[in-house]
Amino acid sequence: MPEHYYALIMAGGGGTRLWPLSRASRPKQALKLLGDRSLFEQAVDRLKPLFPPERILVVCSASYARLLRAQRPELPEANFILEPEPRNTAPAIGLAAVTIHRRDPQATMACVTADHFIGNELRFCDLLTAAAEIAARNYLVTLGVRPTFSSTGYGYIQRGDPLGQAGEFSVFRAMRFKEKPNLPEAEAMVADGLHSWNSGMFVWRVERVMQEFARLMPDLHRVLTEIEATPPSLEKVWQQAPKISIDYGIMEGAAAAGAVAVIPADGLNWSDIGSWDTLLDVLAPDATGNVVVGAEHLAINSTRLLIHASRSQPRLVATIGLSDLLIVDTEDALLICPRDRAQDVRAVVEALKEGRTEYL
Amino acid sequence: MPEHYYALIMAGGGGTRLWPLSRASRPKQALKLLGDRSLFEQAVDRLKPLFPPERILVVCSASYARLLRAQRPELPEANFILEPEPRNTAPAIGLAAVTIHRRDPQATMACVTADHFIGNELRFCDLLTAAAEIAARNYLVTLGVRPTFSSTGYGYIQRGDPLGQAGEFSVFRAMRFKEKPNLPEAEAMVADGLHSWNSGMFVWRVERVMQEFARLMPDLHRVLTEIEATPPSLEKVWQQAPKISIDYGIMEGAAAAGAVAVIPADGLNWSDIGSWDTLLDVLAPDATGNVVVGAEHLAINSTRLLIHASRSQPRLVATIGLSDLLIVDTEDALLICPRDRAQDVRAVVEALKEGRTEYL
Repeated sequence: MPEHYYALIMAGGGGTRLWPLSRASRPKQALKLLGDRSLFEQAVDRLKPLFPPERILVVCSASYARLLRAQRPELPEANFILEPEPRNTAPAIGLAAVTIHRRDPQATMACVTADHFIGNELRFCDLLTAAAEIAARNYLVTLGVRPTFSSTGYGYIQRGDPLGQAGEFSVFRAMRFKEKPNLPEAEAMVADGLHSWNSGMFVWRVERVMQEFARLMPDLHRVLTEIEATPPSLEKVWQQAPKISIDYGIMEGAAAAGAVAVIPADGLNWSDIGSWDTLLDVLAPDATGNVVVGAEHLAINSTRLLIHASRSQPRLVATIGLSDLLIVDTEDALLICPRDRAQDVRAVVEALKEGRTEYL
Repeated sequence: MPEHYYALIMAGGGGTRLWPLSRASRPKQALKLLGDRSLFEQAVDRLKPLFPPERILVVCSASYARLLRAQRPELPEANFILEPEPRNTAPAIGLAAVTIHRRDPQATMACVTADHFIGNELRFCDLLTAAAEIAARNYLVTLGVRPTFSSTGYGYIQRGDPLGQAGEFSVFRAMRFKEKPNLPEAEAMVADGLHSWNSGMFVWRVERVMQEFARLMPDLHRVLTEIEATPPSLEKVWQQAPKISIDYGIMEGAAAAGAVAVIPADGLNWSDIGSWDTLLDVLAPDATGNVVVGAEHLAINSTRLLIHASRSQPRLVATIGLSDLLIVDTEDALLICPRDRAQDVRAVVEALKEGRTEYL
């Protein structure tokens, strides 16, 4: 890979929908949800074929930095870019962009997520390589994912004119971003074959995206310019950064100007592990038809359960006559709910804020 | 009370339907199911208004003796009658009868259970006093309970001619014992007002019940006679004792001969805590409509849950959109099943025998 190519892992999220495993002090990306490596560790490791540790950067809130650095100590301390407080993705990416720009004005950056599952890591590297080619043509590149079902939880990107080929991938102009749709909308977008899921991952030349910050988010650009000129001012000016996502702040406006390319990737085996039910999509059921992580399960007439245990002592979970339940067993808290109510775990977290903050 | 009145607590059972709380080494009667005292401790304590410790005896298997003695050390060690192995209630009661007979040939004995809930302890003492009066008339007295619903889990006793009054209680000849009926039978027996639940508790003169052992169970009577003559022979001859319940072995035949009286008691607030669902009958739901013991419960759209936790560390149980489930949380095992399948906990215990015996 070219020496001017940098990876930025966006590791700022918390992940309240994975309570009781995710906590204020244990964000989703630091959790060993799927095996012996955390999502963050997997995110770093799958970049290694393309990027040396010196060119892998992480943006996260200051409160998570110690935890994440301990998980991948081979990353230089200076590569952890700390937000004084989380202000959504546009300021975080802007802060990373100026940090990288100071090091290397010719840099291209790949903004990747810390908390997604990607089953096919080789293909992911191929995709990042292809995206860098398109970014060199001054597009803002967004990594799309071919939909496998009518998800109402993901955003969608509508493709326009073809922009050619990069590696094995066809590239298109991105016409329109559509946030989480309702079910009929989702079904229509999957059926028409013109839409990709928005993976939330982007590749662009740093100078190119700074132009778009200047054009579309002048307030944020002013903040970023001040930070780039005098980095110690970060703490002081960060509060002036608008709390806006990169999708709303940059991508929609840039797409309207024809400046965005989308690469609709298939075969990544990608999943946004946003909530407990989506974990099921990436884990294989056992012989009894249940997905079990970390527990010994005795199933009597039980199927389609998701059981996730994370405890220091082994533990038996016995179920009789149950189906489609989610059971999450941690040291100090047990969650049980129907799989189709996994989104409502947020409500538990909200309720805990009223007086049981020790479980947050 | 007369000095010849003795209480025998039958504490031989195991209670597999209360797994995972009840285990091979922790039988049901030794568990603090309902609060800060075990069922056995409650069974001893409610006898104390009538019986001094010297006249409270316990029959149990040798393997439980240490555990039970530690729970009520004020009972004399000699009052623990140890079965070399469990052989059902007829041999156990027979063994206790000869033990008491050696001490006091004029004894009357009240055979009471170690593992039932009795909410009204004062009325229970009144009932035992009344039963002793009827036993003095040479009846085998069985303590009935007025049915409050059409249980298919209890046995029933049909009453016949009135035998007069004892204290506040009317007494009847017992006509017929009916083991666990089907639902239409149970509904008919509750509707006709002629049936009581069989509490499994009995009062009789020791010499009188020995006559019935001689008449109805001559094989067992021979064993008991040998034990009474030379107590050290217990281990040797115990294996010859038939494994039969007192109901089948004695009460049915004695009732056929008109020798059994039943006292249909009401107001005892009695329950056989035989399985997890019956616990619900004696515990009051909280403000959210759930019965919770030992856990902190966060209920979101959840009702009619039975949550029983017994852990050294406090623990939060959060439920979303669930009803009519049983959740039992112990240190090393978690059980979840619908309330109406609480009887199937036996199936879990059976399955554990196939290779996961550490959880038995």
